[in-house]
Amino acid sequence: MTKKLFDYQVDEPVEGFFLLKDAEVRIAKNGKKFLAINFQDTSGEISGKFWDASDQDVESFQAGRVIHLKGKRENYQGNPQIKIFQMRLTHDGEPKEVQQFVEHAPMNTGAMEEELNSFVFEITEPNWNRIVRHLLTQYHDAFFSYPAAKKNHHAFAGGLAFHTLSILRLAKAVADEYPHVNRALLYAGAILHDMGKTIEMSGPVATTYTLAGNLVGHIVLIDEQIVKACQQLKIDDQAEAVLVLRHMILAHHGLLEYGSPVRPHVMEAEILHDLDELDASIMMMQTSIAHAEPGTYTERIFAMDGRNFYRPEHDGTKAADPKES
Amino acid sequence: MTKKLFDYQVDEPVEGFFLLKDAEVRIAKNGKKFLAINFQDTSGEISGKFWDASDQDVESFQAGRVIHLKGKRENYQGNPQIKIFQMRLTHDGEPKEVQQFVEHAPMNTGAMEEELNSFVFEITEPNWNRIVRHLLTQYHDAFFSYPAAKKNHHAFAGGLAFHTLSILRLAKAVADEYPHVNRALLYAGAILHDMGKTIEMSGPVATTYTLAGNLVGHIVLIDEQIVKACQQLKIDDQAEAVLVLRHMILAHHGLLEYGSPVRPHVMEAEILHDLDELDASIMMMQTSIAHAEPGTYTERIFAMDGRNFYRPEHDGTKAADPKES
Amino acid sequence: MTKKLFDYQVDEPVEGFFLLKDAEVRIAKNGKKFLAINFQDTSGEISGKFWDASDQDVESFQAGRVIHLKGKRENYQGNPQIKIFQMRLTHDGEPKEVQQFVEHAPMNTGAMEEELNSFVFEITEPNWNRIVRHLLTQYHDAFFSYPAAKKNHHAFAGGLAFHTLSILRLAKAVADEYPHVNRALLYAGAILHDMGKTIEMSGPVATTYTLAGNLVGHIVLIDEQIVKACQQLKIDDQAEAVLVLRHMILAHHGLLEYGSPVRPHVMEAEILHDLDELDASIMMMQTSIAHAEPGTYTERIFAMDGRNFYRPEHDGTKAADPKES
Amino acid sequence: MTKKLFDYQVDEPVEGFFLLKDAEVRIAKNGKKFLAINFQDTSGEISGKFWDASDQDVESFQAGRVIHLKGKRENYQGNPQIKIFQMRLTHDGEPKEVQQFVEHAPMNTGAMEEELNSFVFEITEPNWNRIVRHLLTQYHDAFFSYPAAKKNHHAFAGGLAFHTLSILRLAKAVADEYPHVNRALLYAGAILHDMGKTIEMSGPVATTYTLAGNLVGHIVLIDEQIVKACQQLKIDDQAEAVLVLRHMILAHHGLLEYGSPVRPHVMEAEILHDLDELDASIMMMQTSIAHAEPGTYTERIFAMDGRNFYRPEHDGTKAADPKES
Amino acid sequence: MTKKLFDYQVDEPVEGFFLLKDAEVRIAKNGKKFLAINFQDTSGEISGKFWDASDQDVESFQAGRVIHLKGKRENYQGNPQIKIFQMRLTHDGEPKEVQQFVEHAPMNTGAMEEELNSFVFEITEPNWNRIVRHLLTQYHDAFFSYPAAKKNHHAFAGGLAFHTLSILRLAKAVADEYPHVNRALLYAGAILHDMGKTIEMSGPVATTYTLAGNLVGHIVLIDEQIVKACQQLKIDDQAEAVLVLRHMILAHHGLLEYGSPVRPHVMEAEILHDLDELDASIMMMQTSIAHAEPGTYTERIFAMDGRNFYRPEHDGTKAADPKES
Amino acid sequence: MTKKLFDYQVDEPVEGFFLLKDAEVRIAKNGKKFLAINFQDTSGEISGKFWDASDQDVESFQAGRVIHLKGKRENYQGNPQIKIFQMRLTHDGEPKEVQQFVEHAPMNTGAMEEELNSFVFEITEPNWNRIVRHLLTQYHDAFFSYPAAKKNHHAFAGGLAFHTLSILRLAKAVADEYPHVNRALLYAGAILHDMGKTIEMSGPVATTYTLAGNLVGHIVLIDEQIVKACQQLKIDDQAEAVLVLRHMILAHHGLLEYGSPVRPHVMEAEILHDLDELDASIMMMQTSIAHAEPGTYTERIFAMDGRNFYRPEHDGTKAADPKES
Repeated sequence: MTKKLFDYQVDEPVEGFFLLKDAEVRIAKNGKKFLAINFQDTSGEISGKFWDASDQDVESFQAGRVIHLKGKRENYQGNPQIKIFQMRLTHDGEPKEVQQFVEHAPMNTGAMEEELNSFVFEITEPNWNRIVRHLLTQYHDAFFSYPAAKKNHHAFAGGLAFHTLSILRLAKAVADEYPHVNRALLYAGAILHDMGKTIEMSGPVATTYTLAGNLVGHIVLIDEQIVKACQQLKIDDQAEAVLVLRHMILAHHGLLEYGSPVRPHVMEAEILHDLDELDASIMMMQTSIAHAEPGTYTERIFAMDGRNFYRPEHDGTKAADPKES
Repeated sequence: MTKKLFDYQVDEPVEGFFLLKDAEVRIAKNGKKFLAINFQDTSGEISGKFWDASDQDVESFQAGRVIHLKGKRENYQGNPQIKIFQMRLTHDGEPKEVQQFVEHAPMNTGAMEEELNSFVFEITEPNWNRIVRHLLTQYHDAFFSYPAAKKNHHAFAGGLAFHTLSILRLAKAVADEYPHVNRALLYAGAILHDMGKTIEMSGPVATTYTLAGNLVGHIVLIDEQIVKACQQLKIDDQAEAVLVLRHMILAHHGLLEYGSPVRPHVMEAEILHDLDELDASIMMMQTSIAHAEPGTYTERIFAMDGRNFYRPEHDGTKAADPKES
Repeated sequence: MTKKLFDYQVDEPVEGFFLLKDAEVRIAKNGKKFLAINFQDTSGEISGKFWDASDQDVESFQAGRVIHLKGKRENYQGNPQIKIFQMRLTHDGEPKEVQQFVEHAPMNTGAMEEELNSFVFEITEPNWNRIVRHLLTQYHDAFFSYPAAKKNHHAFAGGLAFHTLSILRLAKAVADEYPHVNRALLYAGAILHDMGKTIEMSGPVATTYTLAGNLVGHIVLIDEQIVKACQQLKIDDQAEAVLVLRHMILAHHGLLEYGSPVRPHVMEAEILHDLDELDASIMMMQTSIAHAEPGTYTERIFAMDGRNFYRPEHDGTKAADPKES
Repeated sequence: MTKKLFDYQVDEPVEGFFLLKDAEVRIAKNGKKFLAINFQDTSGEISGKFWDASDQDVESFQAGRVIHLKGKRENYQGNPQIKIFQMRLTHDGEPKEVQQFVEHAPMNTGAMEEELNSFVFEITEPNWNRIVRHLLTQYHDAFFSYPAAKKNHHAFAGGLAFHTLSILRLAKAVADEYPHVNRALLYAGAILHDMGKTIEMSGPVATTYTLAGNLVGHIVLIDEQIVKACQQLKIDDQAEAVLVLRHMILAHHGLLEYGSPVRPHVMEAEILHDLDELDASIMMMQTSIAHAEPGTYTERIFAMDGRNFYRPEHDGTKAADPKES
Repeated sequence: MTKKLFDYQVDEPVEGFFLLKDAEVRIAKNGKKFLAINFQDTSGEISGKFWDASDQDVESFQAGRVIHLKGKRENYQGNPQIKIFQMRLTHDGEPKEVQQFVEHAPMNTGAMEEELNSFVFEITEPNWNRIVRHLLTQYHDAFFSYPAAKKNHHAFAGGLAFHTLSILRLAKAVADEYPHVNRALLYAGAILHDMGKTIEMSGPVATTYTLAGNLVGHIVLIDEQIVKACQQLKIDDQAEAVLVLRHMILAHHGLLEYGSPVRPHVMEAEILHDLDELDASIMMMQTSIAHAEPGTYTERIFAMDGRNFYRPEHDGTKAADPKES
Repeated sequence: MTKKLFDYQVDEPVEGFFLLKDAEVRIAKNGKKFLAINFQDTSGEISGKFWDASDQDVESFQAGRVIHLKGKRENYQGNPQIKIFQMRLTHDGEPKEVQQFVEHAPMNTGAMEEELNSFVFEITEPNWNRIVRHLLTQYHDAFFSYPAAKKNHHAFAGGLAFHTLSILRLAKAVADEYPHVNRALLYAGAILHDMGKTIEMSGPVATTYTLAGNLVGHIVLIDEQIVKACQQLKIDDQAEAVLVLRHMILAHHGLLEYGSPVRPHVMEAEILHDLDELDASIMMMQTSIAHAEPGTYTERIFAMDGRNFYRPEHDGTKAADPKES
């Protein structure tokens, strides 16, 4: 089986096919050009520098292309990096498909869609149900292919839908435990809460923010689509049920300083915010811990106040060493 | 000429017609009902307590009614109040019209509308112009009659339009001084920035917040109306000009913690925010200073970090006393 | 069936047996003594004032006694209160048992203990299991009878155990959803996290903070008991498994400013903190919403940044009114 | 006409005369010296590195000298820079005058002085007028030649006087709009507010902070000069008019955390603070936007919370693209 | 010996002569006037209310007068208060002197002056020594009679000088321990640091803030006196020694948000700030603890973030109870 | 006498024996390895880079070894550094002892122990005395050899004991000045406050944080040792005296956000916190000032909010230049 980027040990020679996720041209201190590269496969990304790049190298090695690499895995100030010995574009018959090298959600689209529909089925308030179905149809392709964020958590193809599903599952547990929670409202809000990211971001790969994303933001962008959906579905957009649903989305960042124009003032809005943060946090921690050795600390996670996390040496299925033995 | 509320000195007997702005029923420590009243005329408001209120008193003395009062102006812990001797509803032939007792903008509606139109005329970008005219028509009556806020600044009938005009005049001075400022954009944003308050608030008198106001907020409420206006006017709501205009409104609170979902990232949006704050601050200071004697401090202004302001004894048109004289 | 305190409408006469939860002697403005009382039954608490209290009244009406009350339910500035007409101690044959009037966890102790044990059973790491069993035994009675807090959330008899159980159920959902989560660690931490409150607080009724609670705090108080348990069980308290378990408790307030001496640096500690906040928030919202009418707002909840919450008029099982109909 | 620094495109050869604004000697990674240079002309500044500098190069290429440069304009991580091919000091007959290469206020000194005097003329309070004239005379040369700041806004020769004038023009607009504003006080405060920078900074070129600037600060430095002026002019420095004027200067940073020892407690002091910030912000945004292409974002502006600003592609004098066309 | 205010127990009858520290006229809920009084003697202050005050009572019982009181010591919500039975002005031959009832520094003026001079003697830098002597002479009477603050710490006659002395003694300990500390600079700064309070406050009794105090503040007020002193003593006020001394005073609040226009950037300025806070804190804690019973908590101290402090039951000269005994 | 690292001037050749405090292997931009070194002797540390390191160099030049260096002292962006010409391990007969090159506390261990014991002698409360002696014995060696911190203040061998002693001396001055301070409690708390650092840190040299240090922290680590000591000494750990002593240690960081689980609520705990900060600040300032020339600023001190400090040119034993001369 082919070795993945993160299978190589420090100082081990690396040889194989990888995707150029980024390949930025820069000027070195000696005045020559070099390429600052991120190599990617489904195990993650590692950076490397291609020194003394000729104009032809710059032309060939562009982001989004698949290359064949010979090099060595090294460590630079605690972070993994690739020392490049040789690099070339792939030939005919060699891997070319970007999709092979890109990380995906751990479920396929069909399975995600099916599970999502089972939740839609439980949105018993008819107008919420119609709005959700309308927008799921309208943004179908982007919703199931976009990442949930440019970086940080769920930054992989299908991440947006997968993040939504995880929240729905937690929402189910909460609605089962606390009988006064309005399950239909919580599900409807969960499905729509981040859908505006399909307008805010440019696409599933090489993602950037759109002008609408920068000047309006994903929270307001999807809110306006709910209003438009109401017009098309002939639903009164000043009805309490619609205002409450919109509030779910508008308030889901929890705090004004995180970009919500209103704080949660409906119980289910507060819960949606909490579950959104919980799922995002766990995904970031799990990803970092997977790259750390047992008995060591992860790198610092920027979006969690720069904290690092300890991965215990023992997973607790074996006893800690008793004092006396 | 009739004496106004603020014309009476401390301990002077008060007699005249006033509006009951608020008249809240409460239970006194002795178990009897009393009315916590705010008397109002065009000079401002002063509170008073009507003790031992019978059921008929409660029925008669409701907010929004005009009464005849005999009492005395007093001072309670630094704040003016009315001690009530006698109070009755007005008879036929006596004043009844609420409008006579309510504070108004210092210009009449016609003059405000005319001046506003002269600014609209300078919005040279055609789609901004059409959107502004469309919404000015749609919200015409509320826009020219609502206050700009429930309390704090411009809390009087017509205050919203007057606040808008003041900002436009300052905007003109700024656009004259700084040639790179986009005058049309600044004017269009200024006119629309607070128009959502006509949806957020219940009306010009006895103002409360609507459910939409609480759950969505005036910033997003008017943003959605811009989107709807684009649909009706067949303007592409993803065009740069529309996104930039919406950004003007969305960003005008300046900071996320003040309820804007995005911070200003367009020069004119930053300027609009600054002028909005400048006009509101000056109005609050002017109002407070008008109620303070020269050589004393105003009450603390909550919306200005609780600061009080010193009203100098001398207005500077006379010389300060020279040392030697 | 007997009417409960919260069954009475405003202005309805009240007659029945209630517990005096608090009965504080104060001096009225007229120089006479009065009692500031909180009446309690299982539906909640309402305050009232007993004016002109004689020395004998003060002697009779002490906190913790059951009385017979004739009065009226009123409203004082938005809060319910009781106007007292007549009050006397109960006679023989009338209710006397404090337990009848005190709010309880919605499960009985036996059921809670049984469910808790099923979670202990899944703590597969032997030393965690022994420490948890040891401390559950040591603090058994207090753990199942104390509230989780003096006020705010779960402020009822058995609240501490019930809060712990709710977190455990959420923890199960999380461990089921995220396979890398260490279930045993999460369960062990959840069970111990608030057990120090049995030392910090004086008891299940008329709860105050102990000196140890004020000077040391419940987080460190239970941490030291873990250390002592290790000594008795001959477990090395410097072993990784013990340090990680102690970290779960020490870090569970999440932020240093909330009193944790360390922030979470182990994934399960972060999750425990999140679930603790989630359960506390939902309980506070549910309690407040239960006391608010549909279509109105709750009182402001101090521990949730003073926010109030809207209780929708329609629960969403019926459709919102469609625009056209 | 000679090409300016910012006229060159990326990768275009550069040849011409420029001022060395900074030329700092550093040690390269290879142990050799190099010069970190800022080239300047009236269009702005661009950095470049002179590698392998000999002792004679270090001696020749000092800050403040004019040189002849052959090089190429490049881009390094989003910022413009110059790659140096050849550099020499200028010969006889070639440009030598520093003044030709330094950015200036957009008005000449005479015009600025004349306009400033017209504002002084409106300071009708005699002692304010005398103090202002006294200090304008005392600091005349520095006031009209210094920048308003080392970097950020108005960092050019004459910037201090120009910034003062801009504030005065805005102050005129405010005093015209709000009749209760004390025009004389506002003008006097505006003229003096930053005059202490002539003591805080070392001079108009190669500006550094003086010891007095670091240990006392420009706010207190000019305050003490007002006190000294009063002594010389035999004005009582405890008179209300003097205290209020000093307060204008002391409070003009608005917040204690920005270095004002008191917050504004006089209306005109609050307005001066607001106008000072408004002018500084607009100047920073205008400068950055002038260097950004239409349809792109400026660099992040440190003094505006690190925000970048979008320069719209269309200036709004042409219509946005209508949906249907 | 005469009993002092704080010698009376709760519910004990009070009879004696006291000073009316404050006597504010207010309107009771029943519409009649009453006096809100603070009684004072050298043991502290306790409040009381004089109900149904006639116009003659208001005329007689003014702040600053000595009265004879019959009443009872009570407790109102945890704070001591006096219930007034009878009150009259003093007759001839009875105590009249305000000084007898006012709290004083625990040393007399002569002793404080003598000890202060011994510190001045160690200011070996001649200009610092001359400036300090000059200002000590200029403000002599106020310096030795004013309190250090209106309330909070050292709010008694002579408090300013006593606070200064306490800091000097701590400064001596620091200078003895850390040999690199400049003793002369630290002493000079300590003596001058709060001298501006003699200009900021109206006087030693019934203290209010002056206009100069509100608009300029004590830090800048004394700084300007140092500058004036330099002029009279013909010392260059731009010399390093003077700038450093002024920096000591300007920076002594430590943080900009506490009103220092510059933060400490000289070691002795940082130390002065720390000792100033240390002495103020200890004085506030000592005063509060003196009023609390052993084994209880003090009231909350506003200026120490609202914390209360525990006064241990045992002072530690006896053993804590051993476990086994 | 041998020249020390900080005795060399910029550009002066350096030759001598030094300790390699750190020697980290890194990859240069050219792909070759280099060593990032910190040279150390008793005058401090200076960094340098050893380029093109062979595998043997990496093997030889490890942290903790003594080497012979030929190089030059340079300046890199304001910080001193060593340019390395030649470097070799020491031969027989040349210095090898790490102890010769490491900074030490300015007192020897014996003297520190003796002085410390004199303070222990004044802890008159018997249980505090027993606990202090018990733990001083238990941690004797580490307590007298560890630094007080990895970096920042007292980061030298014996620093922990020396820091403790400095606080004790200041504590003596405070207890002498303020008679209500409990001297025994203050001394006991001072001695124990940082003792947990002997568990938190790995050792006196090449110090890292232990797992217990990261997951539990030195404050709780020593608190648990007090509890264990009580068990061994048969002292009731719930007695007031023990709770108060534990509170001294738990609260000594002063603020929750600095890691104390409780804020100081006992007077002596507040004082201990203040003295701890005072001593740490003075040590940091003294160390930085010793490395700055008179008339210049120190580097910025991270732990003091990044402030730099001015070292005056004149120490004040000579007069500042008088104006007239």
